[in-house]
Amino acid sequence: MTKRVYNFTAGPAMLPLPVMQRIHEEFFDFQGLGASVIEISHRSPEFEKLLFETEDLVKELLELPATYKVLFCHGGGQMQFSMVPLNLMGLKPARKAQVIESGNFSERAIEEARRYGAVEIVATSRDTKYDRIPPFDPARVDPAASYFHITTNNTIMGTSWQTFPETDGVPLVGDMTSEILSRVVDMTKFGAVYAGAQKNLAPPGFALVVIREDLLGHADPLTPKLLNYTQLAKDRSLTNTVNTFSIYVARLMLEWLKNLGGVPAIEAVNRRKAALVYRALDDSKGFYRPHAQKDSRSFMNVTFTLPSDELLKKFLAEALTRGLYGLKGHARLGGVRASIYNGMPVEECQALAAFMDDFCRKNG
Amino acid sequence: MTKRVYNFTAGPAMLPLPVMQRIHEEFFDFQGLGASVIEISHRSPEFEKLLFETEDLVKELLELPATYKVLFCHGGGQMQFSMVPLNLMGLKPARKAQVIESGNFSERAIEEARRYGAVEIVATSRDTKYDRIPPFDPARVDPAASYFHITTNNTIMGTSWQTFPETDGVPLVGDMTSEILSRVVDMTKFGAVYAGAQKNLAPPGFALVVIREDLLGHADPLTPKLLNYTQLAKDRSLTNTVNTFSIYVARLMLEWLKNLGGVPAIEAVNRRKAALVYRALDDSKGFYRPHAQKDSRSFMNVTFTLPSDELLKKFLAEALTRGLYGLKGHARLGGVRASIYNGMPVEECQALAAFMDDFCRKNG
Repeated sequence: MTKRVYNFTAGPAMLPLPVMQRIHEEFFDFQGLGASVIEISHRSPEFEKLLFETEDLVKELLELPATYKVLFCHGGGQMQFSMVPLNLMGLKPARKAQVIESGNFSERAIEEARRYGAVEIVATSRDTKYDRIPPFDPARVDPAASYFHITTNNTIMGTSWQTFPETDGVPLVGDMTSEILSRVVDMTKFGAVYAGAQKNLAPPGFALVVIREDLLGHADPLTPKLLNYTQLAKDRSLTNTVNTFSIYVARLMLEWLKNLGGVPAIEAVNRRKAALVYRALDDSKGFYRPHAQKDSRSFMNVTFTLPSDELLKKFLAEALTRGLYGLKGHARLGGVRASIYNGMPVEECQALAAFMDDFCRKNG
Repeated sequence: MTKRVYNFTAGPAMLPLPVMQRIHEEFFDFQGLGASVIEISHRSPEFEKLLFETEDLVKELLELPATYKVLFCHGGGQMQFSMVPLNLMGLKPARKAQVIESGNFSERAIEEARRYGAVEIVATSRDTKYDRIPPFDPARVDPAASYFHITTNNTIMGTSWQTFPETDGVPLVGDMTSEILSRVVDMTKFGAVYAGAQKNLAPPGFALVVIREDLLGHADPLTPKLLNYTQLAKDRSLTNTVNTFSIYVARLMLEWLKNLGGVPAIEAVNRRKAALVYRALDDSKGFYRPHAQKDSRSFMNVTFTLPSDELLKKFLAEALTRGLYGLKGHARLGGVRASIYNGMPVEECQALAAFMDDFCRKNG
């Protein structure tokens, strides 16, 4: 096997080596069938079992009460920008959603939701270039709102909610794409949560949706069948052919996570990893300029800039020669972004921090 | 490597061994990046190149004029049951589609299209259990219709169109999920064609859409962003994270097909394969009872029943002991279905035909 780079891409992201090895080992023969997991029917007993086990692992690891459904939907996190309003705007007659705008993907979610109802932006950090989770006054929650939407971790900005808002009975909906299963979260605070697969779960091609079952049954009549949560819940996600490969990898990832000790264990690892990188940032005495305010720091995506474009280019080029891959920031923000999801071992963050120290010493 | 079964599943379907081996070989390291193709960004130069090459291979192999766009859409063939009416009903003020009903998936496409407009069934073979492509009178084509929809190959029924209908300027839309790239088709007869990946293209998780560009720009305002052909065409399918693994495999499949000699070459192979199985059917003197009428026979899916349920069970069980996997028919029809897509070598159809002869001799 070739040497693997330290892979900091924002998603599709790296997978843990044991998961990669398992996929590789059993690639030609899934459970002794003489066919690959990508060559069998999604309705075969073997695949159905795998799918339902994946569902169960999600429930177990997220400690979901029995009142929540787990769905595997087509199209990644952004399809949810349409599915949430199509399915939930009808919960109340006002057909209105409240949202907090905290980054690029919040903006897109808002734009899409406006097709299907009224959207009120309750708080935004747009004016400070989304460098923080905006504070908001809980008195602003409107009981007539069908739901209240937040992006719990902002991949591009490197910010994340530390504690979640109280919404006084209005269902809280969270886009957890870039942080699902990375820290202990009381899921009962949420009416629904969704996450594109490609950060903490699997290769891209589906979104995980967790939804309280009393929120089902209110989809707009024009909702496409495969975008209807109620239909998917009824069919246990098997309304049509699912993305078998990605779901198979998700099950391996969830097993790997369970064996590690579940969400509390990975949270401890993730805190160590983030602390390593933020330590290097903070010790640089202003050489590295973090984008996120300290009280909004994400521990999945670390974002910062350098004193000049020249130094940024040099930083990225030297990083690559040290095997540190995928550090270029999103076009929207520029600079550097290190995505350090569940699948990344501590060692890679150590390597990044060491490089950052070294680069600062030589160029600071 | 374990011995591979002869895999007749209807999809997700088997892939050619050279394609499987290539995926396995380069699984940990795509193009020397030190990361897997499933671990890199869909916006990395390496993946964008791969995606655009895949698009080009589709254009080349289907001999598409420059007036057609190639799109990779989320959700498989069935998402198109919603996307086609959402995008095309608005082409004409009557908001009406004409359709020919020829099987299970036609039914579903009709049911879904009715959410978005009027649907006229111009011909159906429902009364004969979809044992044929129904004849229809070209005078029935309504110039006020926005489009005219057919299922070119009926996976469950084992029937397929031999020549395509003339629709007198009304855009013909074809669901080619289970036969795309299996035979030479004049694509200029179609306004749009779509195909779920999981039969002739790749593991499941996307649909290939080919659409004449003059049909773009008429989507319903309520169309979800990721279901809008015009948006996807503008973004060259990269509106959000695409299913990178399946598209990667599709490129390998298309390269494999090109090296084989393209569609004319695979059509010759497919005709040989189908002839082997149909020969065994026809030689059985009524022991095997084909579902499809002779003039509607598919050469992707061969469907038949046996004289009794007991013999059917015995047939399927003995087939398995000979390494013939996935032959059980769809619940809707029962019996046996052999799916013999592009990825299946002639040798596997020889093995099936030999087994059928043998089983008939012993039990007929």
